[in-house]
Amino acid sequence: MSFNEELQSRREEAEKIIFSFLPPEEGRVSEVSGAMNYSVRLGGKRLRPIIMAETYRMFGGEGKSIGPFMAALEMIHSYSLVHDDLPAMDNDELRRGKPTTHKVYGEAMAILAGDGLLNLSFEAAVRAFELEPDNKNIPEALKVLFRKSGLAGMLGGQSVDVRNEKAGTDPDLKELEFIYENKTSRLLEAAAMTGAILAGAGREDVEGLERMARALGIAFQIKDDILDVEGDEAILGKPVGSDEKNGKVTYITYKGLEGAKKDVLDYSETAIKEAAALSRKSEFLDRLIRYLVDRDK
Amino acid sequence: MSFNEELQSRREEAEKIIFSFLPPEEGRVSEVSGAMNYSVRLGGKRLRPIIMAETYRMFGGEGKSIGPFMAALEMIHSYSLVHDDLPAMDNDELRRGKPTTHKVYGEAMAILAGDGLLNLSFEAAVRAFELEPDNKNIPEALKVLFRKSGLAGMLGGQSVDVRNEKAGTDPDLKELEFIYENKTSRLLEAAAMTGAILAGAGREDVEGLERMARALGIAFQIKDDILDVEGDEAILGKPVGSDEKNGKVTYITYKGLEGAKKDVLDYSETAIKEAAALSRKSEFLDRLIRYLVDRDK
Repeated sequence: MSFNEELQSRREEAEKIIFSFLPPEEGRVSEVSGAMNYSVRLGGKRLRPIIMAETYRMFGGEGKSIGPFMAALEMIHSYSLVHDDLPAMDNDELRRGKPTTHKVYGEAMAILAGDGLLNLSFEAAVRAFELEPDNKNIPEALKVLFRKSGLAGMLGGQSVDVRNEKAGTDPDLKELEFIYENKTSRLLEAAAMTGAILAGAGREDVEGLERMARALGIAFQIKDDILDVEGDEAILGKPVGSDEKNGKVTYITYKGLEGAKKDVLDYSETAIKEAAALSRKSEFLDRLIRYLVDRDK
Repeated sequence: MSFNEELQSRREEAEKIIFSFLPPEEGRVSEVSGAMNYSVRLGGKRLRPIIMAETYRMFGGEGKSIGPFMAALEMIHSYSLVHDDLPAMDNDELRRGKPTTHKVYGEAMAILAGDGLLNLSFEAAVRAFELEPDNKNIPEALKVLFRKSGLAGMLGGQSVDVRNEKAGTDPDLKELEFIYENKTSRLLEAAAMTGAILAGAGREDVEGLERMARALGIAFQIKDDILDVEGDEAILGKPVGSDEKNGKVTYITYKGLEGAKKDVLDYSETAIKEAAALSRKSEFLDRLIRYLVDRDK
């Protein structure tokens, strides 16, 4: 099986699990549950649950607690996209080539659908206690997952974006790195760490995974900036040059295209080194890191 | 101490605990954490954490797990108000006589502050594992709390309101009761049940508390409809007659003022009977039920 086929197969496995935690679209609440389903099923790389499942497997996890956590993490990612796309935020009408949730269901229902997904992420994660009652690591995994998604993580990063937007200010390089780390790295850290924590990995490995995912997230985000400059619209499936058109400050503003490319390489090497220093190895994880920084979409 | 003094003293205790879980307003995220603080500190009866603390005490709870849950529940309540007040939802400019969160911080920041509070409610609740590591009932309490706040509870009720608003339809009496039960009763059920669950109460008592809180919530909500018709503006601190002015269908539309008053009495008697049937008694809880249905604001 090629790496792409392997990735596709893992994506399908992850989706089967994630979708099994989504609510039926029925009864009086069918509209909001419809919007929740729509938002999660819209597609995506399912990168975070795939990484989580892999670090769980790497460290010998064989139970059922991983499913609820995979679903929870993807729901958190989905809710954040639904709310980011809202008219009061980025006001985006398309995501992955399809109408955003608020375009289909209206603004009020999209706000509720996002709230519903965040709430459901917790309901899903808590099911791990039933599915693997003897796993003593679930509380620690819950703690890490929701710290990384909240004020000290993804949401904190998003809030700095919003504050700058509101004030009409641009982030300097240091603040830009803060935004990248929080908006992108934190959920990758949550993925890599909670998989390992649930499998009973030791503290050193969990911290190594955190550093790996931090570097991977920044590399991933800078790569996004580069693709917006020199990507192929036909492959990307979206227009390039949008950052410049919108006057958006990116990594390239401060480092230039060549500097940015060099930093993607540096950060991805850091990620690979951190993965190599773990007590367990995963060829899949190594290939995934390389794939994500070499991607052309 | 009079009942009002007792209630005031318990409110202050609850606030001390809740506020201790709020984030400092500092660093790059100071604006969103400011909005989160503003939303929770805006005031309110703190009814839910007060009830939770009481059922915990009733069933012999003496540990520290109750604090995180009290904070979590009040944060859930606060986030729901912040999002309900948004322009895309009820578009309210005042709450408790003060500007709503989005009037002070802007719409985007208010959306984020609500998300941040919901996320923080999980982070707070999960701290119960650290504060009372030997309490085996925490997973069940987490499950109940977040089921009652989600699609099968508060959020589900809110979604039916939004659906009707969007479609320009009015709920019939059955649907109105569904909305009252979900928007109001569910978080009261969560309060009464999780306090008892954390204290190790048996299933029959927990189910009795659920029925008690369900009835109390409906009585409370119908009482709100009545106060909007015949309350005293000076005491209420807000204009009366707003439901009629806004063409809003309420319990009174279907049952009339006298019918509504009779039902408040019926529901509150049910609540009192359910409380009397529990294996532990609480004079405070009895008085609280009577107070809430007799209130003039």
